Amino acid sequence: MHDQQLATRASELKPSAVRELLKHSKLPGVISLGGGIPAPELFDREGLELAVSQVMSGNFNDAFQYGLSEGYSPLRQSVSELCRLRGVNCPAEEIYITSGSQQSLDIVARTLLDPGDVVVVERPTYLAALQVFQLAQANIQSVDTDDDGMLVEQLADLLTTTKVKMVYLVPTFGNPGGKTLSEERRARVVALAKEHGFIIIEDDPYGEINFTETRWKTLYQHAKELGCADQVIYTSTLSKILAPGLRIGWLVMPEWLAGKAIIVKQATDLHSNSMTQIVTAQYLALNRLPQQIALMREFYHKKGEILANALREKLGDHIEFSQPKGGMFLWARFRYEFDTTAWLSKTLANGVVYVPGEAFYNDAPDKRTLRLSYSTVSDADLVTAVERLAKSL
Amino acid sequence: MHDQQLATRASELKPSAVRELLKHSKLPGVISLGGGIPAPELFDREGLELAVSQVMSGNFNDAFQYGLSEGYSPLRQSVSELCRLRGVNCPAEEIYITSGSQQSLDIVARTLLDPGDVVVVERPTYLAALQVFQLAQANIQSVDTDDDGMLVEQLADLLTTTKVKMVYLVPTFGNPGGKTLSEERRARVVALAKEHGFIIIEDDPYGEINFTETRWKTLYQHAKELGCADQVIYTSTLSKILAPGLRIGWLVMPEWLAGKAIIVKQATDLHSNSMTQIVTAQYLALNRLPQQIALMREFYHKKGEILANALREKLGDHIEFSQPKGGMFLWARFRYEFDTTAWLSKTLANGVVYVPGEAFYNDAPDKRTLRLSYSTVSDADLVTAVERLAKSL
Repeated sequence: MHDQQLATRASELKPSAVRELLKHSKLPGVISLGGGIPAPELFDREGLELAVSQVMSGNFNDAFQYGLSEGYSPLRQSVSELCRLRGVNCPAEEIYITSGSQQSLDIVARTLLDPGDVVVVERPTYLAALQVFQLAQANIQSVDTDDDGMLVEQLADLLTTTKVKMVYLVPTFGNPGGKTLSEERRARVVALAKEHGFIIIEDDPYGEINFTETRWKTLYQHAKELGCADQVIYTSTLSKILAPGLRIGWLVMPEWLAGKAIIVKQATDLHSNSMTQIVTAQYLALNRLPQQIALMREFYHKKGEILANALREKLGDHIEFSQPKGGMFLWARFRYEFDTTAWLSKTLANGVVYVPGEAFYNDAPDKRTLRLSYSTVSDADLVTAVERLAKSL
Repeated sequence: MHDQQLATRASELKPSAVRELLKHSKLPGVISLGGGIPAPELFDREGLELAVSQVMSGNFNDAFQYGLSEGYSPLRQSVSELCRLRGVNCPAEEIYITSGSQQSLDIVARTLLDPGDVVVVERPTYLAALQVFQLAQANIQSVDTDDDGMLVEQLADLLTTTKVKMVYLVPTFGNPGGKTLSEERRARVVALAKEHGFIIIEDDPYGEINFTETRWKTLYQHAKELGCADQVIYTSTLSKILAPGLRIGWLVMPEWLAGKAIIVKQATDLHSNSMTQIVTAQYLALNRLPQQIALMREFYHKKGEILANALREKLGDHIEFSQPKGGMFLWARFRYEFDTTAWLSKTLANGVVYVPGEAFYNDAPDKRTLRLSYSTVSDADLVTAVERLAKSL
């Protein structure tokens, strides 16, 4: 009876499709290709136990006390080293610890966006980013993608008629598409940012989960070379490469933004979890992460191939897709008119779920698409899941 | 050079006075009566070590994996038991885990407040709540307080002319004033809520840190008796009674609000820290918290008395105050015209800091006031601090 008390921005919110889906995926016997969660068998139990035990004996008081909104200093230091290896060369003072990438996006949106500001995203894009921009009451505009990521010339066209505040990109092994922005387009989008004065959010959760030997320059690095690094906000997380339960992400922010963003962070939750920040700092100091990432690449690479091979064999006449080159997702599309949202109830009855592509579009959804995650499914179940999908046609 | 890119709400933000102050308080030799942080010697090291070790051996995968936005179910269950003992009788399904009280307030504000909505606070009130409501671009109105808390009849007057959306109260051992709302006023403010249809946020971080035998009914309980429990949002935290570094707070929300608030929570940070939620659940299952709270009461009670006695002796002719009956703060006021903000540089030079009362007012600050925290200062330093204050006059 009090629904009319809700704020405008809240009354328009809808539960995310993935969230609803996760309920189904817990049903016994159902194989879920839905979630985007890392495989728990890849958690570095030995390393995390060591880090936790060091914290409990050596950093007890700090781990359980209030901390700084900017983050735990030794963690900012280690993360800046991690960043440097990725081509994000910045001092520890420009690293701000957040409670995961989701919070990074939310803080940036709250610091930068007034209602109606134009935010450009890829079509399709990361679902939870759409939620953040919707909550900020932004005017979300989508630009199409192909196998080389965002069609940057389409963005250039949009810029001739529209004042764009921010462009949100997952340039490497994007979610859901698994696509990577080509080097040429990276340079171009940064040049457009410089010319038109918009901000780029470079969201990079999956860059390290690379199945190839190719490395791409970060947008941050392109911007640094072009002298406009103060227009790029780089964000990443340890959720995919270490453990999501730690809730540790970070932002690399230019000074003009950081001063206000840190007040927003403080108003939001004072600071990120002291205990898991310190555990993470201790873990990184063990220097086990590179070996973990190597294991992870091999593990997910193999899973991605098993899924791709099964799909080609059993569903190749029905769907098309590119073989994943990194990340956790395979993005597929029916070769003919098809509604993957409607199809879900049928596949669920046959014991398999996925995320209908529709969830990843701000507008004009391509209903032929679907996202399949291979990260947590056993090799045998990946094959069974595809058989169940084929049976559901 | 990009400052004009900031959102309106962000460009108006100012760093909190306390945050600035904390920098000074780390100077060697300075005694800080400024922070509101719990004494680390009260952290239950043995219990926390036990809980952490149980989690590492028994709940490893859950602790490091993604979790639910609502919170970890066994923790919601334990917290509902904690709530029941406080007179907040609700099922675990109405408990929502947050990353501390600060986030509880922010989520509620984002779900309920449109810019310009009227939020009524106590004068003075909790600084960080002001930050949240400012960030929500609310129209903040203050109602005066006396030793029995908010002057509820002043609120009643305001309601005759103003549409109030929400009233924010720290009814028990408030911050900064340390005041407790009388039972009669509790009943009255809830009756006003029912009559006028506004929402009450009952923020209760300090209720358990009670130096007396008196117990007050929660506003939630009053509302339940009056049949309007769906207008009260109760929030509390383990930061003061267990450990702030865990970042575990909670909200008790009526159904009409919870559905949307949980989507806001998800957009904000997906979910609170898995690891520390599970550690907290394990800790609570050890049933050590009641004994901890008993220790804490005694410890802070003694500190409060030492500070009050020293103040009476050395500064009694200059300031007036009520002896703290609970919580972590002593709120004092000069007996004559005085500017405690200006005074701070002088006391800092003499090696003692406090929070000038000004920081806790949304408008019309009483510059004679100051907040003194006794929670983390040794008994001897409390006396020395007061001597240094006296020397600074």
